[in-house]
Amino acid sequence: MTSPDIILPYKKEHPASYAPGAFATIELMHTRPQLLRKVYIRPSFTEKDSLLAECARLGIPALCGEEAFRRVREKENEYVIGVFGKYVDELGPGRAHVVLVSPMDMGNLGTIIRTMAGLNITDLAIVSASADLFHPKTVRASMGALFHINCALFDSFGDYRAAFPAHACYPFMLGGEALPEVLESENTPLFSLVFGNEARGLPQEYASIGRAVRIPQSPLVDSLNLSVAAGIGTYAFAEKYGLIPSVL
Amino acid sequence: MTSPDIILPYKKEHPASYAPGAFATIELMHTRPQLLRKVYIRPSFTEKDSLLAECARLGIPALCGEEAFRRVREKENEYVIGVFGKYVDELGPGRAHVVLVSPMDMGNLGTIIRTMAGLNITDLAIVSASADLFHPKTVRASMGALFHINCALFDSFGDYRAAFPAHACYPFMLGGEALPEVLESENTPLFSLVFGNEARGLPQEYASIGRAVRIPQSPLVDSLNLSVAAGIGTYAFAEKYGLIPSVL
Repeated sequence: MTSPDIILPYKKEHPASYAPGAFATIELMHTRPQLLRKVYIRPSFTEKDSLLAECARLGIPALCGEEAFRRVREKENEYVIGVFGKYVDELGPGRAHVVLVSPMDMGNLGTIIRTMAGLNITDLAIVSASADLFHPKTVRASMGALFHINCALFDSFGDYRAAFPAHACYPFMLGGEALPEVLESENTPLFSLVFGNEARGLPQEYASIGRAVRIPQSPLVDSLNLSVAAGIGTYAFAEKYGLIPSVL
Repeated sequence: MTSPDIILPYKKEHPASYAPGAFATIELMHTRPQLLRKVYIRPSFTEKDSLLAECARLGIPALCGEEAFRRVREKENEYVIGVFGKYVDELGPGRAHVVLVSPMDMGNLGTIIRTMAGLNITDLAIVSASADLFHPKTVRASMGALFHINCALFDSFGDYRAAFPAHACYPFMLGGEALPEVLESENTPLFSLVFGNEARGLPQEYASIGRAVRIPQSPLVDSLNLSVAAGIGTYAFAEKYGLIPSVL
């Protein structure tokens, strides 16, 4: 029933992944239709007919049946799956970036991607990735926003820096200057906001890559959740530089 | 081996819950030791001796052994478990509040509690709770910050409002005024920040409870993740009113 190049369940080493669910699959159809290899639809999906028609219009192979859904894990059992080829993006040299160093949790990675899309900072560099960018869990946590932003992977921070030497880097670290003070005294719209991972934050040597920033924080906690810290930092910078084309 | 009033695994209807892990249990020992009924420690826990000594000093029963750990679910298998009696807090009538309306996800609930503690807004009202405040998953997501803040449950928003009529309410809704504009034009440090749930946000009738606020957002996403939205909103208000006693 399925073409032999489409392999489920997901494995990191496969050249393809899938968007779990109708919402993420439709985001993918609207943003990167050329990557979609096949859309699987369960016969019980209520909007089956319109989705099949849309796939036909875009020339995307679609299959209505239960088989593919038996081959994904229970928790990922959705009404629609969109299988797509993994891809490589280039980041915009003239746009603001978020840089994540060794993020470990796919839920956090997807949530940060969703936040970035919402705040219109659409270029993400991941340095020595640990969490899998294309895992269906990341796609789900991003609510399909993964397909709206440009993501690039780098083996080291040095590699990223060499590719984008003009960006002002702001490492978020507990020992940095308070976020409001930094924002008040800067005017550098070409910025990179650099966040460390869930367990350890950024290593101390990142203090020298730019002006270190800390989100003011009470002594009641050791740190904020990574998605929350990245959300606060990204919002504060995006708001200051007027990057969010707000909609009502 | 275990006293008959301590029941594992966790069930919502039990009058007791447990803090999963050494970190959350130690937070509990330092903040609300009178609630701790028993601390279970695995024999392989590296800091077993100092934790046993601390329990003895505080008069908290402690038991070193594997039995209790076999009765909690695999994913919650930690080296330390602190069983505590559930409790009811009163909110401060003169302090700022966060109000969550029907939060569904225990991870989000715990993450928001961690953020609140980090931003020193320590009073949380939950209206028609769906996520279980005392579930070990909530405790884990809060990183033990649950025990630092005051949480109170209300059957309806009307009940909350009747108890705290002096607070200026800010419902976070897509149709509200942009967050920076609201902050610029207000000076009301006794505030309640009101957030809806993950699936639907706040019902439209909440627009009349106060000045509705929206976090500026691009058309690329339908909404921000609840923990991230609450983090951005809470940070912006806490920062404006100087509520965060920042530490380096």
